[in-house]
Amino acid sequence: MKRVRIGLLGCGTVGGGFVRLVERERSRIRDRYNVELNLARILVRDSSKERPGVDRALLTTSALDVIDRDCDLIVEAIGGVHSAGTFVRRALARKRSVVTANKALLAAAGGELFRAASRNRVSLGFEASVCGGVPVIAALRRGLAGDTIERITGILNGTSNYVLCRMEEGLSFTDAVARAQELGFAERDATLDLSGEDSAQKLRILANVAFGDGEVRKASVCGIGGDVRHVRGTVVRLIAEARRVAGGVELCVEPRRFTYDHPFARVRDEQNAVVIRGRAVGDVWLGGAGAGASPTAAALLSDVLECVRDLT
Amino acid sequence: MKRVRIGLLGCGTVGGGFVRLVERERSRIRDRYNVELNLARILVRDSSKERPGVDRALLTTSALDVIDRDCDLIVEAIGGVHSAGTFVRRALARKRSVVTANKALLAAAGGELFRAASRNRVSLGFEASVCGGVPVIAALRRGLAGDTIERITGILNGTSNYVLCRMEEGLSFTDAVARAQELGFAERDATLDLSGEDSAQKLRILANVAFGDGEVRKASVCGIGGDVRHVRGTVVRLIAEARRVAGGVELCVEPRRFTYDHPFARVRDEQNAVVIRGRAVGDVWLGGAGAGASPTAAALLSDVLECVRDLT
Repeated sequence: MKRVRIGLLGCGTVGGGFVRLVERERSRIRDRYNVELNLARILVRDSSKERPGVDRALLTTSALDVIDRDCDLIVEAIGGVHSAGTFVRRALARKRSVVTANKALLAAAGGELFRAASRNRVSLGFEASVCGGVPVIAALRRGLAGDTIERITGILNGTSNYVLCRMEEGLSFTDAVARAQELGFAERDATLDLSGEDSAQKLRILANVAFGDGEVRKASVCGIGGDVRHVRGTVVRLIAEARRVAGGVELCVEPRRFTYDHPFARVRDEQNAVVIRGRAVGDVWLGGAGAGASPTAAALLSDVLECVRDLT
Repeated sequence: MKRVRIGLLGCGTVGGGFVRLVERERSRIRDRYNVELNLARILVRDSSKERPGVDRALLTTSALDVIDRDCDLIVEAIGGVHSAGTFVRRALARKRSVVTANKALLAAAGGELFRAASRNRVSLGFEASVCGGVPVIAALRRGLAGDTIERITGILNGTSNYVLCRMEEGLSFTDAVARAQELGFAERDATLDLSGEDSAQKLRILANVAFGDGEVRKASVCGIGGDVRHVRGTVVRLIAEARRVAGGVELCVEPRRFTYDHPFARVRDEQNAVVIRGRAVGDVWLGGAGAGASPTAAALLSDVLECVRDLT
């Protein structure tokens, strides 16, 4: 039996979902993989807050108390670039594998962090950073590693897709965004999602996995707004596309129009979908829930098991 | 630079595709993964046959000449159960990792072979055995490892799907099968595909990965034939489904009817598609080319890279 002590940074929506999932999956993972998972320490901002299902004795407000402790790996679920970046750098430097859902951090400092992980001979898992529970990173890194990837095209942002679906039903852009916010599919400030920037961050991560450190030759990002018009028989989707071109990679995020029979038109509400074009395999489709506490937690836990496999 | 010597068993459609793919991807793999792939020896039945792009000096008609040589891993592309089984057992016993596309062998002797691999501390890669280039095994073993899988539902046989699509267009069952045979989508004897047995073999492999060695409580296999009726607004698909039930797993292969708007109705011709339902992630979709020399070779090569990662 391999015993693994996990240090968790952050216990909000995603972190809390991870705690509950570890609890639920613990016995299956013990039986299946001969691995005993233990949450050793959890970083929170306010340790007095009620957190149903979370053992209060594990909580700490000191990040160093998590990172510098005797943990085998660190799960980062804080989000944001600044503090999260400091903590992840420190964990890697102390030779702890890190699993993260933090696309903003990877988009901003991925190259540096992957080099730090490699230098310290530890893993940096990031399945949860793109498309939530849809295992697109595993597909690219593992199942399709033998093929040359030509192109990746996808609906990578669930919020904007939800808004576009409501606009198809006749809602104005403003009302559609308000509806998404009411239901928790959009943040109070939805700019990152609607501007295409969130899609662009995820696209950079996918391109990096698929094409390696190829230089980005051109990147254009265009989001959605009130000017999206309804045209009978068609729908609009916010599409992110990365293409291999001579000597590098081109990235593009833009709204595109599809007829009803196009597979992208079938991607509804907050769902995500990705088409990966390989030279040998042709088009491979993946789709599913792109966000949410449960799918994201499942992706984090899958990455934890991947790291455990590498632990000696 | 890690140098890897590959012994290839079989140089037919899949094996030949593998040789060509290794040639094409060699420099990318060298640059990307710091791995130098070399085909060291290739088992063929008739070494005098013309094989464009295959170095004749590598050919041998002796399996032992491949397995017992100084190869780091063995790629099995013979097919069938008897000889392939003997060779794979011998390779594993000699502590060679094996990569195979052989679903029949895995369905017949998977448990024994996986135990042999584990006992000898080598890998047995089988991504290519199900859904060709669609990375469904990587998805289940890696990206979704953290979640409890409840159900797997899919179109796993491209031949029968091609036949059903032609029947939608008005062809009789017999004519549709003949068309599939003309175009190389069906064997001369298509019984394995049309009876549902091929789907059932693949389903057993998927169920084993998803649910572990859970006892199969019930398995029913029903294929397609001339009695598939066309009903306006609907299509028929040959569906393979594995479900977790109390104390085990239930398997079922049967033709099911779907309305046009159902995602399975959109799976055309020789394509494959799988829906994996996880307790945390919900429904995850994968789809693409389910067979063919190129996609299958790409899956074999991805598994080779996976094995190389484990080689010390």
